[in-house]
Order: sequence, then structure tokens, then C-alpha cells
Amino acid sequence: MSDADDRQARGRRTLSEYHGRPGEEVIERLGRISPDFARQLVDYCFGDVYCRPGLDRRSRQVATIAALAALGNAEGQLKWHVRGGLNIGLSREEIVEILMQMAIYGGFPAAVRALIAAQEVFDEIDIGGEEAARQDDA
Amino acid sequence: MSDADDRQARGRRTLSEYHGRPGEEVIERLGRISPDFARQLVDYCFGDVYCRPGLDRRSRQVATIAALAALGNAEGQLKWHVRGGLNIGLSREEIVEILMQMAIYGGFPAAVRALIAAQEVFDEIDIGGEEAARQDDA
Amino acid sequence: MSDADDRQARGRRTLSEYHGRPGEEVIERLGRISPDFARQLVDYCFGDVYCRPGLDRRSRQVATIAALAALGNAEGQLKWHVRGGLNIGLSREEIVEILMQMAIYGGFPAAVRALIAAQEVFDEIDIGGEEAARQDDA
Amino acid sequence: MSDADDRQARGRRTLSEYHGRPGEEVIERLGRISPDFARQLVDYCFGDVYCRPGLDRRSRQVATIAALAALGNAEGQLKWHVRGGLNIGLSREEIVEILMQMAIYGGFPAAVRALIAAQEVFDEIDIGGEEAARQDDA
Amino acid sequence: MSDADDRQARGRRTLSEYHGRPGEEVIERLGRISPDFARQLVDYCFGDVYCRPGLDRRSRQVATIAALAALGNAEGQLKWHVRGGLNIGLSREEIVEILMQMAIYGGFPAAVRALIAAQEVFDEIDIGGEEAARQDDA
Amino acid sequence: MSDADDRQARGRRTLSEYHGRPGEEVIERLGRISPDFARQLVDYCFGDVYCRPGLDRRSRQVATIAALAALGNAEGQLKWHVRGGLNIGLSREEIVEILMQMAIYGGFPAAVRALIAAQEVFDEIDIGGEEAARQDDA
Repeated sequence: MSDADDRQARGRRTLSEYHGRPGEEVIERLGRISPDFARQLVDYCFGDVYCRPGLDRRSRQVATIAALAALGNAEGQLKWHVRGGLNIGLSREEIVEILMQMAIYGGFPAAVRALIAAQEVFDEIDIGGEEAARQDDA
Repeated sequence: MSDADDRQARGRRTLSEYHGRPGEEVIERLGRISPDFARQLVDYCFGDVYCRPGLDRRSRQVATIAALAALGNAEGQLKWHVRGGLNIGLSREEIVEILMQMAIYGGFPAAVRALIAAQEVFDEIDIGGEEAARQDDA
Repeated sequence: MSDADDRQARGRRTLSEYHGRPGEEVIERLGRISPDFARQLVDYCFGDVYCRPGLDRRSRQVATIAALAALGNAEGQLKWHVRGGLNIGLSREEIVEILMQMAIYGGFPAAVRALIAAQEVFDEIDIGGEEAARQDDA
Repeated sequence: MSDADDRQARGRRTLSEYHGRPGEEVIERLGRISPDFARQLVDYCFGDVYCRPGLDRRSRQVATIAALAALGNAEGQLKWHVRGGLNIGLSREEIVEILMQMAIYGGFPAAVRALIAAQEVFDEIDIGGEEAARQDDA
Repeated sequence: MSDADDRQARGRRTLSEYHGRPGEEVIERLGRISPDFARQLVDYCFGDVYCRPGLDRRSRQVATIAALAALGNAEGQLKWHVRGGLNIGLSREEIVEILMQMAIYGGFPAAVRALIAAQEVFDEIDIGGEEAARQDDA
Repeated sequence: MSDADDRQARGRRTLSEYHGRPGEEVIERLGRISPDFARQLVDYCFGDVYCRPGLDRRSRQVATIAALAALGNAEGQLKWHVRGGLNIGLSREEIVEILMQMAIYGGFPAAVRALIAAQEVFDEIDIGGEEAARQDDA
């Protein structure tokens, strides 16, 4: 396997660990706009950075959620990373604490928007879970 | 002791845990500009937020370092929080990993500035340590 | 009454002065996501800051509208504060002047978005007023 | 013709060159909110800046698309300028390259949002073109 | 007098009202880099916007100080506008109140930097005043 | 040669084309802080993005100068890219035009700072040139 193939494979695996199926869907969507950008994003962000051993996955996801909340202009991507945070083991309470703390750095309006976005993710999961449970009952 | 005194005391303790003597110096400096703002900063940021039990100190400091690096306009405060990160147990390697990851969210120029700022903190500590060692020898 | 109760009460009163019933609704919504964050926002923003005597209410609201317009990423909150500005006595013309001036500091795209958001508030009020008038006629 | 009339006329012409009919529609919309702001925008942005001879139209539009993508909070205006870029001769491929490059300066989330916005413009044009073609057939 | 001359003259007068001699110096400095940009800045910012009758000078300066503090990346220009605020009648206490309030919208790090910048302006004025007093004694 | 070596070599070549010796110096400096980050920056920014054939070098540099000026918080990196712009054939006048235009998107304070930074680069080049001329005379 070439270095490039290896890097892409490593990136795909890391993306999957953090974001599961929704992660793959975002890459597929981007791939329809620009296949090269989709490949670069997987290669660099997940094949070069997130997979590095020097920082644990939990801390990496804390850092990303904090940054997106403080920047305050990426609600969609914040929601995606809130799901990612739950995937790799952050609790809802911990995510809310991170977002509350971001009022100090990104201002209260950004923190309010971030908390509303996180709640939407939690609600989607709860409703999805109820639907799944109803289907199991059927 | 009143609620307000209690909150200020709790804030001071938490500030000290994270930032030690340099933390107190910043508050003293702010206190000469606006005593009320200095009190609010200690009360709210440290007495209300950082001291909350729902998130560990390490994750709180990861979140703050990430946010300041991604915002990219607060070099002095990032340096202060890099020191705080070392105080509460983050390694230099971990801090560098957080800042590298922020290239994805705040862009490469912001990450480059953050890494240079962190290195300045590391150098100040190393030089300070050497000077302290020389003084011990004397 | 404890200091903490006093601060919360003072914050609630100040919030009401500026934002009326819509202000309380936002706090109720936030309270369903994080009761502690909702309390902190009222305590700190309205119980510690907005209620301070050193600056008149009108100037406080001018400052907030200007800041949100210049930041350019908080349309929902800008609309909320445009309503707040009208509540505490700013005229529509004055609000439009503030937003026009923000083209200088936040750029024209941010000013355009802010003016469109303000117009939406004005339209909602006019339509609401017409509806109220029709109901009075009935 | 007065200087002021001349400047407004020059601004209108330049606006039309870059943005065609959609450019005029935005000015009409703004004119219903604030006629003075609409006039200033045409006068200054298009009558003073974009019409200057020192930089070619293509480079001016590259600069604007890059800036809006890197700022990451102006999706609507970015779409407007992607259309403008196509109007004055940038290819779709070139626009995608500019946006990919902006991942370096504004971060990946901003670049992803920008690419999705550009694709929406391309799709609107393609669908509009198909509709126009069907109408020609009729 | 032509419209263009009139606008430039009106801009110069307004600039002087707000910023006095330091305002003229900034324009002279910019004029050495780009005379056209210096003229545009005076024409548009001061000849078109700041001189408009729909908002009082005090509120205009409150808006600008708030915006620059919240944006958090323009320390030099904030200091210039703090001086401008004092020129047109804001008190030091009022300016400090505006900056404290901006912690809510631009975050605490931005507010801390803004307060330090304002204090530097106050100190420069006090030291300048003492020097002037000493010279008067001589 | 492996893919990875190839990518790094391509990145180094592209970096050199745009930024010459100062480009290499920045990478060396970063390499002393984090060799992995220095490699990633060359690999991704220059080996993956800047070297792509779909956009001419001139337009790439216009895009970068515009983005950094509009973001308004990266003076050092803007200066570096102004030099890069001159290296690959932009004239001083064209760079000044790009920066003037950015007042529309990043606000006037950001544009003023960018123009001052560009003038500093021009002055450093002129002084360097005079010194080189004097040395040739010796």
C-alpha cells in the first residue's frame, strides 16, 4: 500500500471512530462538490492530526467543541462535533459545562447559540431513541 | 460569611489553583483600572464557572487553550493559560498537540502564532529554571 | 434575603426593564437546557453589569447593538436587542444610524445583515400592531 | 451632472458589471430599509472602490470571495459574490480552488460552509438553465 | 465649491470635532501610504456617516468604542477612539462601563485588553497634563 | 521516492517559489517548536493546496492577502504574504488596491492596519535595496 493510500485509510478509520456514519456522509457530500477537498480533509484533519498519539481522543474533542463554540459562527459543525463528543465518551453534562465556560471566551451570545445547538442534538438523539424503541416494540 | 464574600473567596482559591501568583498579579493590575471589573472577573469566571464540579480541571484548561488559539487575537492571554495548563498537569507535548489541532478550526496563521506564543512560555520557564538553579549554586 | 437571591432579583428586574416578556422567555428556554447557565446569565449580565449606575440605559443598549452588529454572527440576538433598544427609548431612525455606522467597523456585509434583521423586527412590530388594532376593533 | 450624481452613476454601472440584475435587486431591498445606506453602499463600494483602475476585475472578485469565505459568517453574501465571480469570468473550478485554499486561513469549517454555498449557486444556475432550456423548447 | 470638495471639507470638520489634531495626524500618515484611501476614509466615514444628524455624537462614539472592544483585534484604534470619546464628552467612568459591558459580547479576554488600552490612554493624558502643568510653572 | 517524500519535496519547492529564503526561515523556526507541525504545514498548505494547477499563482496570492487583511488579526503573516505577492509578480499598487478594497469586507480599522503593515514591507525593501546599493559601491 502506498503512503497516500495508507494516510487516507488511517484518516477514514479515525473519522469513523469520532463521527461514525454521519462522518462518512459529510465526506460523501463534500466529495460531490470537490473530491479533492474531501480527500484533503480526511487526509490532513483525520489522517495527520486527530490520529496522533500525543493527546487523548477525549481532550481532542473537548478542544474542538470549545473552539467551535467560541468562534460562534459554525452551528452546524458544532452540532456534528457534539455528536462526536458523545461518541467518544463525553457526557451531556460535560459538553454543557464546556459550552457554559465558553461564555467567558466567545461571549454570552455565542455560548447561548452553542447551548441551543447542543440541546437540539440531545433532543434528536432522544427522539431517535424513542422511535427506535417503538420500532423494537412492534 | 455572606454569599458574596463566599463567592469571591471561592473565586480567589480557584484562580490560585489554575494560575498561582501570576493569576493574582493580573487581578491586581485590573483592580487598579477597575476594582469592580476585577471583582466580577474573579466572581463569575472563577467563583461561578471554573470551580464547578461537572468537568475536570484538565478538560477546562484544554477548552480554554483551544478557544484562545482558535480566536487568534489574544496572544497574551493564551500565554497566561499555557502556564495555567502546565500548572494543572498538562504536558508541553499535549499543549502543542492542542495548538496543532487548532490549525483546522482557526486556520494555520492562528495556529502558528499560538505555537510561537507557547514556545515563548516554555523558554521563559526554562530560562527561569536555569537562573533559579544558578542562584541555588551560589 | 441572601446576597445571591438579591442579585438574582436585581438581574430579573433589569432584564425585564430592557427586554420585557421576550427576555423572560429566553431565560425560560435556556433554563430548560441548563438552569445554572440561565441563572448565571441573569446574575452576571443583568444583576452585575446592566444595572450598574455609571452608564445610562440608552448608552448601554447603543453599545450592545453596535457590538452585535460589528461581530456579525449573532442575528437572532441582534434582533432581540433591537427590540430592547426600542423598549428603552431608542427610535427606529437611531437604530438604523448605529447599524449604518457599523459598516465602518464590521464591514458592509455585516451591516447589510444587521439592517435586514432590524427591518424584520420593525415589520414584526408593525404587523403585530395592526393585528392588535384589528382585535381592538372587533 | 454634479459630482455626486456622477459617482452614483459610476457606482451603478460598476455594480451592474459585476452583479447584473441581482445586484440591483439587493440595492432596491436595502433602499426600502434605508435609502441613504443603499446610496452610500453604491457610492463608496462601487463608485469609489471597485471601479478603480489599479486592479483588474478578476483579481477584485478573487479578493472578495476569499475574504468572505475566510470570515466565515456571510454565507448569503458569499453566494452573491460567487455569482459575481462567474459573471466577470472566473470558472467554477477556479472558485472552488479559492475556497479550498481558504481552509488554510479561515479554517476547515469555514471552507466547508463556503464550498456548500458555492455548490448551491452552481445548482441554482444549472436548474435555472434547464428550466430556461425547457421554456425555449415549448 | 464642488460636491466632492464639500464632502471632503465636511469630513475634515467632523474628523476634527471627534479626534482633534491626532485625527489629522492619522490621515496624514495614511496619506503617505495611499492618498486615495486617506481621502476615501475622510469622505465616507466622516463626510458621509459620522456627520449625519440622525444620531447624537455621544451615541456614535459609544457605538464605536463598543464595537472595537468587542471585535478585540484593534487595540491601537480603540485607544484612538477612547481619546475621541473623551473629546466629545464621555467621562472616563462611562468609557470603563462600556468596556466592562463588552465582556458579555466579546468575551473577557477582549474586555481585559480593552480596559488595559483605555487605562494607557488615561495615563498618557495624566502624564501629559502634569508635564504641561510643569511647563506652565516654569 | 515515497509519496510522503514526494509531497514534502513538492511543498518545499512551492514554498520557495512564493516566499524564497524567508519562507524557509519560518519553517525552520516552526521546526524548532514542533517538527511535525512544520512538516504538516509544508505538506498540506504548499504540497497539497498552493501547487494545484486549477488556479494561477497570482490569484492564489491575491486571495491570501485579501483573507489575512479581512481577518485583521495576523499582521506578521500579512507582511510575509505581501512579500510573497511581490515575489510572484503583484505590483505594490495592486497590493494597495486589494487592501483598500478590504475596508468593505473587514472594516476600515482592519484595512488601515493592513496598509500600514504593507508600507512597512515596502520600506524594508527600499532600505534593504539602498543598503545593498551602498555595499555594491564599496
